[in-house]
Amino acid sequence: MFGIVLFAHGSRDPAWAQPFARTAASAQARLPDALVTCAYLEHMRPSLEEAVLGLAARGATRIRVVPLFLGMGGHLRKDFPALMESIQAKLPGVAFERAPSLAEAPEVLDAIADWVATSVGDPKAKRDS
Amino acid sequence: MFGIVLFAHGSRDPAWAQPFARTAASAQARLPDALVTCAYLEHMRPSLEEAVLGLAARGATRIRVVPLFLGMGGHLRKDFPALMESIQAKLPGVAFERAPSLAEAPEVLDAIADWVATSVGDPKAKRDS
Repeated sequence: MFGIVLFAHGSRDPAWAQPFARTAASAQARLPDALVTCAYLEHMRPSLEEAVLGLAARGATRIRVVPLFLGMGGHLRKDFPALMESIQAKLPGVAFERAPSLAEAPEVLDAIADWVATSVGDPKAKRDS
Repeated sequence: MFGIVLFAHGSRDPAWAQPFARTAASAQARLPDALVTCAYLEHMRPSLEEAVLGLAARGATRIRVVPLFLGMGGHLRKDFPALMESIQAKLPGVAFERAPSLAEAPEVLDAIADWVATSVGDPKAKRDS
């Protein structure tokens, strides 16, 4: 079984996670043969370790972690690799991989630019200027 | 002239902003008649106020701020409205609006789910399971 963890920053505010839960549900619908779940770096549960152990308990033997971070900062470059290493050490039998993050996904950045251009920068706004 | 500010969290790490700068350049290419720029809530410059005053100085009379936050938390629901109000008070002649954030853009969340499904959850991974 193949497992995917959508890994986000987290917040003290429970409402914060709604867009991530929605994205996980959409990805799960597109990948009916995989197990898709969310995990959070701070303030929210499950943690990355809890989510990965949960997927392994449900039979995942290959797990990819997708960082849903748009910025390319310290969380991704320092905290995240250390976390991955510590979790892998607890699950030697699972093929455990880091997938590219949103910051490394030109197709997602292009989709954001398209959305800005079509929904925010509408022609009416230009005519009004 | 119509101005658009892509407003992101910011980080102490200068590399963090690269995906946002790329997105702003793509949006600018799609909207040649508008002025598109980035701004940051913390740790980076320009601040939202600096960016908005800069667009007004370049002739923008209508400015929309697009929060590039995926989560729907305190920054968006508390800090951001207060910031918008304080900037509007300094620019009474500018039509100043908050656009929806990424967290409120189903087309962007769907694009992320598509990207997860096609690039991360590839069929080979399922066959290997």
